[in-house]
Amino acid sequence: MARASKREEIAQAALEQFRTRGFNATGISDITSAAGAPKGSFYNHFASKEESALEALSRYAAGLRFDLLDTPGRPALERLRAHFEFLGADTVDSGFGRGCLVGNLGAEVADHSEEIRSAVQGGFQRWAAHIRRVLTEAQDAGELDAGLDVEDAALFILSAWEGTLIAARADKSPAPFDAFFRMVFGVLLR
Amino acid sequence: MARASKREEIAQAALEQFRTRGFNATGISDITSAAGAPKGSFYNHFASKEESALEALSRYAAGLRFDLLDTPGRPALERLRAHFEFLGADTVDSGFGRGCLVGNLGAEVADHSEEIRSAVQGGFQRWAAHIRRVLTEAQDAGELDAGLDVEDAALFILSAWEGTLIAARADKSPAPFDAFFRMVFGVLLR
Repeated sequence: MARASKREEIAQAALEQFRTRGFNATGISDITSAAGAPKGSFYNHFASKEESALEALSRYAAGLRFDLLDTPGRPALERLRAHFEFLGADTVDSGFGRGCLVGNLGAEVADHSEEIRSAVQGGFQRWAAHIRRVLTEAQDAGELDAGLDVEDAALFILSAWEGTLIAARADKSPAPFDAFFRMVFGVLLR
Repeated sequence: MARASKREEIAQAALEQFRTRGFNATGISDITSAAGAPKGSFYNHFASKEESALEALSRYAAGLRFDLLDTPGRPALERLRAHFEFLGADTVDSGFGRGCLVGNLGAEVADHSEEIRSAVQGGFQRWAAHIRRVLTEAQDAGELDAGLDVEDAALFILSAWEGTLIAARADKSPAPFDAFFRMVFGVLLR
């Protein structure tokens, strides 16, 4: 069990390092030091940095709490807002250090690794599908203009979110988040 | 003059490499080979890779053709659309290889280099200010709802554009661009 737990620590450290330093700037030794493990031990658990990034993406996706998006009981648009508020708080709480791993890997690695590009693409598609379902629920409940193309809107809102994280981290201020919430929930989905 | 021209070639090669490979994945030798120059010659012109990235950002900003945004004669929203169509075509024409250098450096380097973060922040601010002026013109001309907060809208549209580039490059498809144009010009600014 000690072995499984060391793998867990290395995988979690890789996720943190990729989110804050980026993929290319993270060395294997950054990951193992953060995990308090000897450098060579990385390769007992992962064949390559790329493989650890693919696992980091899965772990990151699991932390996106899609369950909050999908759980009925609150109005659909309220759930969508809570979803992004939850994610934005994580970036603000980290002093604008942590971004979105899906977007960061997309910006940084999409051209170098077909496997990572494809994982990022799949991550975006599944995420957009969740948002689309929430928007459809909102339309069915009469909360949202039935004429809005929810496929376009879901893709656009997700893209806007990714760009908002980049702008907020560069600005080290929540102003881009504020603009996102006011424009998405006050104008686009009103 | 030969010396000035070699600097020009190295600076241009750095811009291309940073846009396609990213900052951290680009080595000095990638830049000098692309420029057809010996590796050591880089340091005759730039003190560091970071310094060449700051110049690449200025060059990239100059290529954004803000003049097209600001030249009167066409309706303001048409100019805004043409601006993003011009930029999107460049990404599509490069087989989704080239993204936005401002956004890419923001995603990748904002946490490592205070100078680059600050240059990215300034780049976003100037860009958003241009967009805001065009939106204000559109309001003055009665093309756009006078109640729209143009400050929020400009920041949001720019963030959405940056995220759209990431999504399109990960998807290797223009679908995210299509969603951007339909949502921004068909819904947000209608």
